[in-house]
Amino acid sequence: MAVLRGDHVLKRVGNSTIYFQNPPVILSSAAIGGKKEGEGPLGKDFDLIIDDSLYGEKSWEKAECKMLKEAAQLAVNKAGLTLDDIDYFLAGDLLNQIITANFTARDLEIPFIGIYGACSTIMEGTALASILIDGGFAQNVLVATSSHHQTAERQYRAPNEQGVKHKPTAQWTVTAAGAAVISREGNGPCVTHATFGRVIDLGIMAPDDMGAAMAPAAADTIARHLNDTQRTPGDYDLMCSGDLASVGKGIVETLLEQKGINVGNKYTDGGVLIYDLETQNEVMAGGSGCGCIGSLMCGHFMKEMKKGTYQRLLLMGTGALLSPTSSLQGESIPGVAHAITVEMNPGKQGGS
Amino acid sequence: MAVLRGDHVLKRVGNSTIYFQNPPVILSSAAIGGKKEGEGPLGKDFDLIIDDSLYGEKSWEKAECKMLKEAAQLAVNKAGLTLDDIDYFLAGDLLNQIITANFTARDLEIPFIGIYGACSTIMEGTALASILIDGGFAQNVLVATSSHHQTAERQYRAPNEQGVKHKPTAQWTVTAAGAAVISREGNGPCVTHATFGRVIDLGIMAPDDMGAAMAPAAADTIARHLNDTQRTPGDYDLMCSGDLASVGKGIVETLLEQKGINVGNKYTDGGVLIYDLETQNEVMAGGSGCGCIGSLMCGHFMKEMKKGTYQRLLLMGTGALLSPTSSLQGESIPGVAHAITVEMNPGKQGGS
Repeated sequence: MAVLRGDHVLKRVGNSTIYFQNPPVILSSAAIGGKKEGEGPLGKDFDLIIDDSLYGEKSWEKAECKMLKEAAQLAVNKAGLTLDDIDYFLAGDLLNQIITANFTARDLEIPFIGIYGACSTIMEGTALASILIDGGFAQNVLVATSSHHQTAERQYRAPNEQGVKHKPTAQWTVTAAGAAVISREGNGPCVTHATFGRVIDLGIMAPDDMGAAMAPAAADTIARHLNDTQRTPGDYDLMCSGDLASVGKGIVETLLEQKGINVGNKYTDGGVLIYDLETQNEVMAGGSGCGCIGSLMCGHFMKEMKKGTYQRLLLMGTGALLSPTSSLQGESIPGVAHAITVEMNPGKQGGS
Repeated sequence: MAVLRGDHVLKRVGNSTIYFQNPPVILSSAAIGGKKEGEGPLGKDFDLIIDDSLYGEKSWEKAECKMLKEAAQLAVNKAGLTLDDIDYFLAGDLLNQIITANFTARDLEIPFIGIYGACSTIMEGTALASILIDGGFAQNVLVATSSHHQTAERQYRAPNEQGVKHKPTAQWTVTAAGAAVISREGNGPCVTHATFGRVIDLGIMAPDDMGAAMAPAAADTIARHLNDTQRTPGDYDLMCSGDLASVGKGIVETLLEQKGINVGNKYTDGGVLIYDLETQNEVMAGGSGCGCIGSLMCGHFMKEMKKGTYQRLLLMGTGALLSPTSSLQGESIPGVAHAITVEMNPGKQGGS
């Protein structure tokens, strides 16, 4: 049901979920992964696997940039468009000052809207792109994100050369990039709803337990989304969070159960999908990083939707909003989670 | 003139400038400044001056957070609203992982959209807020940004205790926060247009010459905006860029002249307005930081518009998209500039 405020009708269901009147189309998408991601159970869903972590560049940061730029260009090519057809480029990443996104934007020469939602970036970007399109401000918007194991490791944790042992709760930053062209018209899965997350902090202090830090925000967003839309987990073929990995995923299930929501087999997480936690056990609890759900949305999930495996998905990005400085200053780690509903052939929305 | 693409009418003039059909209102705003900003020529336009750089906290980072949160809360109070009335909080800052904005969002408990545009953040946020509102997705949106001299100095340059001498081209990071409530209805200056910037890099390498690094992006956005809207500088009471300071401002004037645009006395810059460059000469070329144009927009300019001094302003935020890592790796500094037109009593827009 559309919500009335004053004299106005907002494109909203419930308290805080946006619905799109003419659901924007995910016209094309591209995913690039690293060697370990290529060896994972969804390796075949990447458009390109990069075996060399430096990707022929002089630094891992430059390699990440090259990967993001190639994913972006590939998504545009697959849409049958050129960069001139793209109205806005929305991107962000984990590196300080989102430098990967900035340098990619410099090369693309498209008006650029920089975003930061840590590992929730691809969903924040896709939601904003859909707002730009359904609001009448754009025809085609390019969204992209990336993470790189070595650049994240040395920025957030320790020099890679040090080979620090990780705790069982720790996660492995995914080397991957995802990009998508969101458009006003065309064929493909459509974005029907968006639920932006609140920043929630239950006091987790350990940067090597990020799944636990992000879980309360993930549970809050799922619960708000279901409540707003008056849906149950059964109304979705699958609900997938970003990169909570095995520890965080279990906490989300418990937190939702406490709210009276039984997700059954309708809920999973990108951090447990992207690696085989038994044979690739150096990843500990599973994957993390913007590139985790970023590449899964733009690779695996879009492919499966087009094949008909899924009709309606809730895709959620989950971000741990820490910085090394805040952790050193004794701050706990807040989390945020942004979710979108993606649907095949939804038709015009009027709320319901 | 509205632009046709396919069968659709986009809310756009020219190639890339958005116009708002029902221009969103800047319902209220608040600005907080530090001691030096309070002693500057516009000191009286701040709602609050903080004499102590630690603001009673244990670290400068926590002080910056407190300042941003208070500016945000003050803007909401001045609008006669409560936090419950705000649909979205959009914010960003200069610190790694925009931690100031994240922690403020944690305390506000409003759905949060994190953005990063370096010192262009307040304009990126105000443009996105206006899109959310004119697109029909929100009633009230809170936008905020901040910078703090000591937190920026030690993150980007050197420990404050070291007392490094700055070059004449260097700028002084402003300690200030600005926040604004953008709404669908009410009285106040309205946002009529937004021009998002492209990322432009002419190869400036020196982090102590940021004005020069940002100037090409600023000139590009002004030129595109004027071309899109078929306006001249004479159609504005004033066009103000964010924080180019004296060196960058001169370069913008030269670059615009090369494009055949004579700005005459219609152009100035926040970095030269916020300090008295003669008596406060330790600031070298002038101010910089998200809080510079952030606090000037939310303090000085909103006050002057309400007094009737200005009817139509072009306000632009300018961001230098560097990180200490990218500079160390030999990268040059790209810039970005986002602009909005703010007008008293514009009426309904249909393009023209």
